[in-house]
Amino acid sequence: MADRRPRVYLAGPDVFYPDAPAIAARKREICARYGLEGCFPLDNVVALDAPTPAENAFRINDANIELMNSCDAIIANMTPFRGPGMDGGTAFEMGYMRAQGKVIVGYTNDGREYAVRVKNTSRAIRARGNGTFEDQDGLLIEDFGLADNLMMHCGAMRSGGDVVVGNAGALELQTSLEAFEHACALLAEKLRA
Amino acid sequence: MADRRPRVYLAGPDVFYPDAPAIAARKREICARYGLEGCFPLDNVVALDAPTPAENAFRINDANIELMNSCDAIIANMTPFRGPGMDGGTAFEMGYMRAQGKVIVGYTNDGREYAVRVKNTSRAIRARGNGTFEDQDGLLIEDFGLADNLMMHCGAMRSGGDVVVGNAGALELQTSLEAFEHACALLAEKLRA
Repeated sequence: MADRRPRVYLAGPDVFYPDAPAIAARKREICARYGLEGCFPLDNVVALDAPTPAENAFRINDANIELMNSCDAIIANMTPFRGPGMDGGTAFEMGYMRAQGKVIVGYTNDGREYAVRVKNTSRAIRARGNGTFEDQDGLLIEDFGLADNLMMHCGAMRSGGDVVVGNAGALELQTSLEAFEHACALLAEKLRA
Repeated sequence: MADRRPRVYLAGPDVFYPDAPAIAARKREICARYGLEGCFPLDNVVALDAPTPAENAFRINDANIELMNSCDAIIANMTPFRGPGMDGGTAFEMGYMRAQGKVIVGYTNDGREYAVRVKNTSRAIRARGNGTFEDQDGLLIEDFGLADNLMMHCGAMRSGGDVVVGNAGALELQTSLEAFEHACALLAEKLRA
């Protein structure tokens, strides 16, 4: 890592946002300010002209896997996506990088703990005994004071990284890059250490 | 793998179900019928008596990572969890095992494609052009005819595994083990090949 900037895979549901290319450009720019080379999943986009949708999906999958293999670290957008939890594809990528021993820094624009978000979006909650709660479907509400499921939050910590918890407000949930910038600063520092 | 049964990590939101230990026992039993040793995350449970919730979370995380490292393959419950997508912790584990080159077989008890589930649960959908749609928050609805995000579905396929799509009906979404049993049969066959 001495001769080149560390390459950072920029995971997140950002690829589904209305202005994904603009967000990619801003993220790359912020990365550069911290001496990092930001690699966005869309960078590797291949022609999506395969005969079937599934074949196009494989092309994207293969490109993302190759991009992750070429990166030294990952910054993962853990902001809730279509429910109280983070985007599953991003969680997959955190796990993938974790197994490769790479540093993971997660960030979220939602300042609430996972358990609070679940309680806020549940139609009903019930006490399960020994201080735990379940939602209307009888599903245990994981409550360790973390930003999301413990595999992701603890996984980031154990990787030598961290989780940056921002608090962007509903209108800026998709657009704020404040927590992302903190994540870049933190990652740059960790990679220098 | 000649002298012992292949060890299979049984990932899923099952740990949050009301009857998790009973489900674990049934899953292990089905695995055994197919010559597999089912390893359930709760198997490794350590005392959760740490001074802080976060420390307990780390104990579970470390136990799950250790258990995954000791397994040859993973069967992942991809049934939707608190929204249209699968459980994020399970997605993390699929990514983790994928990076280790282990075989992944996913299954879901919900027969609908991911895009259909998102459309069913969206308050509004809008055409985005070139045949794609976005939900009420402007988020692209990924639509490749797959069971979930392409990283998980294609990841399972690329690992030498597959995704078994069941169709259990709302009342049995958590309890049916029909698709799980197919996943066991399929995995046993793939591991013999």
